[in-house]
Amino acid sequence: MNDSRPVRGELRYEGKAKRLYATSDPQLLWVEHKDDATAFNAVKRGTIQGKGEVNAAVTAELMLFLERRGVATHFVATLGPREQLVRSLSIVPVEVIVRNRAAGSFAQRYGVEEGRPLDPVVIEWCLKSDALGDPPMNDATAVALGFATEEQLEGMFEMAADVNEALGPHLAEHGLELIDFKLEFGTDEEGRLVLADEISPDTARLWDVASGERLDKDRFRRDLGGVEEAYREVYRRLVGEEPA
Amino acid sequence: MNDSRPVRGELRYEGKAKRLYATSDPQLLWVEHKDDATAFNAVKRGTIQGKGEVNAAVTAELMLFLERRGVATHFVATLGPREQLVRSLSIVPVEVIVRNRAAGSFAQRYGVEEGRPLDPVVIEWCLKSDALGDPPMNDATAVALGFATEEQLEGMFEMAADVNEALGPHLAEHGLELIDFKLEFGTDEEGRLVLADEISPDTARLWDVASGERLDKDRFRRDLGGVEEAYREVYRRLVGEEPA
Repeated sequence: MNDSRPVRGELRYEGKAKRLYATSDPQLLWVEHKDDATAFNAVKRGTIQGKGEVNAAVTAELMLFLERRGVATHFVATLGPREQLVRSLSIVPVEVIVRNRAAGSFAQRYGVEEGRPLDPVVIEWCLKSDALGDPPMNDATAVALGFATEEQLEGMFEMAADVNEALGPHLAEHGLELIDFKLEFGTDEEGRLVLADEISPDTARLWDVASGERLDKDRFRRDLGGVEEAYREVYRRLVGEEPA
Repeated sequence: MNDSRPVRGELRYEGKAKRLYATSDPQLLWVEHKDDATAFNAVKRGTIQGKGEVNAAVTAELMLFLERRGVATHFVATLGPREQLVRSLSIVPVEVIVRNRAAGSFAQRYGVEEGRPLDPVVIEWCLKSDALGDPPMNDATAVALGFATEEQLEGMFEMAADVNEALGPHLAEHGLELIDFKLEFGTDEEGRLVLADEISPDTARLWDVASGERLDKDRFRRDLGGVEEAYREVYRRLVGEEPA
């Protein structure tokens, strides 16, 4: 990596919550976290004021925490309030969902009450495909259809379990229960798995330990009100200072 | 089991394709295969003339074949053209789907072409729940929500793989390619897994080896015509004489 400040190049990809730009270094990408919010596979759309800053800061904080715990992440540096430098990876088209309690689509799919503890912890694969609605799949399906190798699935399973075991107690110290979360992984030029994407109230369900109050995107999904305030509260608890 | 002919008792359960009656022996049930056909979780309904007889005879033939290969099945005896005596089991609420090629809902779910060979063979669990649309689930989900034990999943996986390895070549000898099929299992009073339900053109996709023609319920699902004739053709190939 060059010592000089990276320069933002052309837009490479615009997702629902982030823009990815090239930089002068082909190994690095410039990420911009947006305030745009979507839910239910983009059927519901809106804006959460300040979300980009909260998600950027919370992701940076948690990725640095995980790096200290030995988890390889794509995070390189903070470039601005909502902008980050990350490693460019070959993304595995599998969303990894870790569930400590039943909630959301999982609770609906199996007809169980939200909040039910899951033992064992459920680690699910979903095909990363907006067009297909991110369908869940099992190991054999992912391998047979060429979405991931058996080795990648084993590696992602272990890393996801490690992330859960590290993040759960860490968040609990800040009064947040980690209900479930979604991870994405990529592989570097040597084929090693690296944690990518983000960890934020957009991608994790976080319930206040004392009150059970939801401090995550479910406030937006379900029109519970206090959406911005919930995101800011997560920021305050994990980053420690009021976002600008 | 009593030597005298069993007597049909009260209706215990009526499903989409079968009725189950008690008998004087609490360990045995009387099954009647119906001509009623449903598809897409009973959104489409109809009748396939003679289906009950075909499914009863084909199921009997294939279950007896599997018994000879060492697979424990619930089949006891044929009672009539569409009626069978089976062991009463505690049904595991998990549908086991074995897929040698992508087809039907699987091909749609993952956006792949029908007929694509699957390596490894995909063995899927779906929760047996019409109300929830039989959602797919992984091992941890099935265990965490109490639908099956880890041991039952391992046992069903092995038995399903054994059934596939035995049935595939057997059906091929009769000019039928086994594309995919659904199995159900129950446990007996000693907790042993036993193959239950049926194996028929309702529950298995069977393609003519030479022409690729579909000889199964997809003819009904997709309004392809020749539904009754396809069922009778499977009967002729596997049972060997024209159904009455």
